[in-house]
Amino acid sequence: MKAAFAELIRNLHAKGWSPATSTNYSFIDEHQQCWVSRSGVHKGVFSEQDFMTIDNTGIGTGMFHGTKPSDETQIHLWIYNNFPEAKVILHSHGKYPVLISQFNEDFFPVQGYELQKGFKGCKSHLDSIEIPIIDNQQDMTVLCQALDVKKLAIQHHCFIIAGHGTYAWGADLFEAQRHLETLDYLCECEFLL
Amino acid sequence: MKAAFAELIRNLHAKGWSPATSTNYSFIDEHQQCWVSRSGVHKGVFSEQDFMTIDNTGIGTGMFHGTKPSDETQIHLWIYNNFPEAKVILHSHGKYPVLISQFNEDFFPVQGYELQKGFKGCKSHLDSIEIPIIDNQQDMTVLCQALDVKKLAIQHHCFIIAGHGTYAWGADLFEAQRHLETLDYLCECEFLL
Amino acid sequence: MKAAFAELIRNLHAKGWSPATSTNYSFIDEHQQCWVSRSGVHKGVFSEQDFMTIDNTGIGTGMFHGTKPSDETQIHLWIYNNFPEAKVILHSHGKYPVLISQFNEDFFPVQGYELQKGFKGCKSHLDSIEIPIIDNQQDMTVLCQALDVKKLAIQHHCFIIAGHGTYAWGADLFEAQRHLETLDYLCECEFLL
Amino acid sequence: MKAAFAELIRNLHAKGWSPATSTNYSFIDEHQQCWVSRSGVHKGVFSEQDFMTIDNTGIGTGMFHGTKPSDETQIHLWIYNNFPEAKVILHSHGKYPVLISQFNEDFFPVQGYELQKGFKGCKSHLDSIEIPIIDNQQDMTVLCQALDVKKLAIQHHCFIIAGHGTYAWGADLFEAQRHLETLDYLCECEFLL
Repeated sequence: MKAAFAELIRNLHAKGWSPATSTNYSFIDEHQQCWVSRSGVHKGVFSEQDFMTIDNTGIGTGMFHGTKPSDETQIHLWIYNNFPEAKVILHSHGKYPVLISQFNEDFFPVQGYELQKGFKGCKSHLDSIEIPIIDNQQDMTVLCQALDVKKLAIQHHCFIIAGHGTYAWGADLFEAQRHLETLDYLCECEFLL
Repeated sequence: MKAAFAELIRNLHAKGWSPATSTNYSFIDEHQQCWVSRSGVHKGVFSEQDFMTIDNTGIGTGMFHGTKPSDETQIHLWIYNNFPEAKVILHSHGKYPVLISQFNEDFFPVQGYELQKGFKGCKSHLDSIEIPIIDNQQDMTVLCQALDVKKLAIQHHCFIIAGHGTYAWGADLFEAQRHLETLDYLCECEFLL
Repeated sequence: MKAAFAELIRNLHAKGWSPATSTNYSFIDEHQQCWVSRSGVHKGVFSEQDFMTIDNTGIGTGMFHGTKPSDETQIHLWIYNNFPEAKVILHSHGKYPVLISQFNEDFFPVQGYELQKGFKGCKSHLDSIEIPIIDNQQDMTVLCQALDVKKLAIQHHCFIIAGHGTYAWGADLFEAQRHLETLDYLCECEFLL
Repeated sequence: MKAAFAELIRNLHAKGWSPATSTNYSFIDEHQQCWVSRSGVHKGVFSEQDFMTIDNTGIGTGMFHGTKPSDETQIHLWIYNNFPEAKVILHSHGKYPVLISQFNEDFFPVQGYELQKGFKGCKSHLDSIEIPIIDNQQDMTVLCQALDVKKLAIQHHCFIIAGHGTYAWGADLFEAQRHLETLDYLCECEFLL
């Protein structure tokens, strides 16, 4: 799992979705242990050794005891707590969702694309979909409160943080990647239009 | 053949033409057996084992007996039935044809490009070419009826499904790829203009 | 030389500069023998075996006796005859020069870019440069006559054929590549503006 | 260090940030020796042998005695003299900063992006950042005088030269790359808007 995830992270970097040392990633293993990507590692050289274990408050455990992961780990924990089906979370800085958030305030509306069926549960290009957009915050507690308010609107396993990037998740690596790629593609098409 | 086709599928994915688990592919082998790409496989890791045999109603046969491929297999069968020269079919979600379909309703008109000679039978950049655009449908029977209506207008070995993607085919892998790349390039140029 | 050239051709294809089976390439070896890329080979798999020898009328010689290369070989011969410093010629279908030719009729004007110094002989970003644009023709004799008329205006080792692509050349592979990349970059910047 | 730096240079080339033979790179090793990339090497094949030692006037030393590196070496020396924390300098011709410099004269203003935190010292997306833009010059003495004038405004470890490209630096390879990628991403987002 860690090897496959590290390879995916390197591939997402190759697409330009994690410039600088931005973005972070996590998963829950078969023992319900949460692993997150370590802070400050360049995603182009991310390896399976770059995941660390955390407890349910977001503090490093075991051989990572005392190590602090990225502040945004709080967002990962919020997602796992509120969407129990989530076992893998991907955070991307792909530029199209960031650009879309400059034109839309509360949510990104999509309709008419076959690819929206990439979101689990969406069955037709005719469905009207809304992807919530959350205001960016440096204070993760405030950001998670904003997520609490919009929780019911998060129906497609992903959301956008304005001027920042996207979070997408799934029951496994494959589904999380599918949701992320679906959201990015739809943002790119709508932005180019 | 299967190895070369699987490599092409991975290359098309690397171009961003099959985001999420979208797109599907098929070919007819030298024994007139039809093979289609299995459903739900991520195209970035597609291998020659990911093709399955089907009968002429689109149901899995042999060791794939009972397995159901993608619903869009019906479109592949429609193409093989109506264009006997087709032996390889490529379906792509490249974004430029999708974007073009937002500006054109019935067909995509092209003229003045040297590259349009990439379509078999087209001899000059001065030819006026029209690539049919079909409305998207979730019901494949309805979609194939729409194809029946436009059949005579399909003169360049490809068509666009609005908001969805393209189908392109040829007598071999090489020709099908040429038709697909030609259509995508022309859509990109016209969209950027 | 042939191995290095074949690798460059595959790299140019990876950039999307030779969609379908478009584009062609040539060089003159140390015995003054002219070699051209064989017709119809997909550039993504071009190998050193895919070059053929031709005589000075553009007909295959030696083991390629009687084989006819692409019609555009006449353009290569025109360049070698008129620009004796040319030993390597690259023809690209990169989309930005094609798009630029929709906005400019006779020439593409450039000024103010540091990168224009990539053209041999250009010493400053303040120089005003003009890259000739030639009307596209299917009849190579007519196209070469148009080149004759514009010959004096071809001062930067390259020209654009409208709706078609670019030709760029140099005293070696390295210089020809530099001229091609310079032209494409300048076309992209000006088009995006 | 040289091997890792050469690999980074090839990766930056693969992104299209060093077309033709443009761009140059340098670092200061643990003995305070300055190394610069040799002039005229294509960045797609840059190797660790392509760095040369220079003295503090920019002239080759040791086995490179008498070899002259690129004129722009003067800009590297200016940066090392004025920003002592700089140990690695990257110069890029990525097109977005070049395009941004056509719309902004004195500086490129940024605000509202999470990724601006990629600049060391920037703590919030709410910070208002200004990246200085310097007029391009062929005379490096004149260019460095313009840099002297703007020195206090250079607060984010990078600047843009109009119509030319960017310089970014850091205490190590990793930080310099982070600053370069951050600047390019912000320029791309703002240009696309």
